[in-house]
Amino acid sequence: LLSIIESITIHDKVRISELSGRSGVPIPTIKYYLREELLPAGRHTARNQAEYDDSHLRRLRLIRVLGEVGELPIAAIRQVVMAVDDESLPFHDMLGVAQRALAGDVDRDAIPERREIDSFLSELGWRVSRDSPARDQLAAVMSSLRALGWDVSARSLRPYARAASALAEREVKIVDPTISKVDAIERLVIGTVAFEKAFAALRRLSHEHHSALRFGSGRRFA
Amino acid sequence: LLSIIESITIHDKVRISELSGRSGVPIPTIKYYLREELLPAGRHTARNQAEYDDSHLRRLRLIRVLGEVGELPIAAIRQVVMAVDDESLPFHDMLGVAQRALAGDVDRDAIPERREIDSFLSELGWRVSRDSPARDQLAAVMSSLRALGWDVSARSLRPYARAASALAEREVKIVDPTISKVDAIERLVIGTVAFEKAFAALRRLSHEHHSALRFGSGRRFA
Repeated sequence: LLSIIESITIHDKVRISELSGRSGVPIPTIKYYLREELLPAGRHTARNQAEYDDSHLRRLRLIRVLGEVGELPIAAIRQVVMAVDDESLPFHDMLGVAQRALAGDVDRDAIPERREIDSFLSELGWRVSRDSPARDQLAAVMSSLRALGWDVSARSLRPYARAASALAEREVKIVDPTISKVDAIERLVIGTVAFEKAFAALRRLSHEHHSALRFGSGRRFA
Repeated sequence: LLSIIESITIHDKVRISELSGRSGVPIPTIKYYLREELLPAGRHTARNQAEYDDSHLRRLRLIRVLGEVGELPIAAIRQVVMAVDDESLPFHDMLGVAQRALAGDVDRDAIPERREIDSFLSELGWRVSRDSPARDQLAAVMSSLRALGWDVSARSLRPYARAASALAEREVKIVDPTISKVDAIERLVIGTVAFEKAFAALRRLSHEHHSALRFGSGRRFA
């Protein structure tokens, strides 16, 4: 994560070598992004060179966040970048494109569980599109648990849904709809991935705490 | 996950070929586990063969759960198996070995953040050992967020800690302390990994729901 470009602003126009210097992204990588049309071409000058500005630096940062934080492959990065560039796409739908890209390839084999998850989400009254990959992710987890002999129902996910909703409501509330689309996508990717990890670490710590209260002697804890 | 051995019981003693047949684990893999001492040797019979029983089948299942669900490398699986076999190790400490193995290698570079996380956990009053890898995982997330320009404090983790604790308390409560150590480890691994995924999927679905309420037109949702 630390190799992500910091928030530097270019006030002038610069050549590719300086764009590389300021962003920390190697020139061959920048050229690759240009060829792949992830990065818009620079403005051509008389001397057969191209000039880049702050929008290019900003886009490089988005590409790095999608690739390094979101761990997206190039094809998925392109989808997100196209959604950002599509002026006609509503804000909510653009966020949906990024969220779908983050989900990656999802196993859609858990057919009976998928039906249970769908009716569970209806009961909750959640407004989520029918083709949201997280539906299949949930169904796949349920199917795996059953294959391992766990007796789970969609209903047993209720406490998880409640906890997730309390957090998600806060998280969406602090999204400022006046920020740029690029900033919004970046916050979605970083927020989704980073707080997923943070929550998982806190849950494990809390397991240790509750296990210590229940099974521990208390002597081995600071 | 589906390749995990189902809950089959062997009531008799069988040869390696039948242990393989019943478990679905190929003979060369079983021989590898024997060489690596993950699986105890079978009882040698007169005819220079070895016989295996239900405990071997059970151990094969544990190894597969650790490897396939927990995604642990062989060295980590060995640590967990040794903890299970160590009669003198208290229940809570054995669970700790498994939890540490699940954490894998943790980046310990986020020194200032680690100090903040430590005092945050003290404030919460959580009984977690000083060398718990999840402390460093949390510190690493905080450090990454700051490198990306997010203004986060340990205090901003409070809602996540509250949600995690509510779930973890329920989860630890349903652990039956009279089950075998092998079953307890297996439940810990499966429960930690599977419900982490389930929670992440529910949080993403809930983001979509709250984003739809806030930014969506409502027309594109089922």
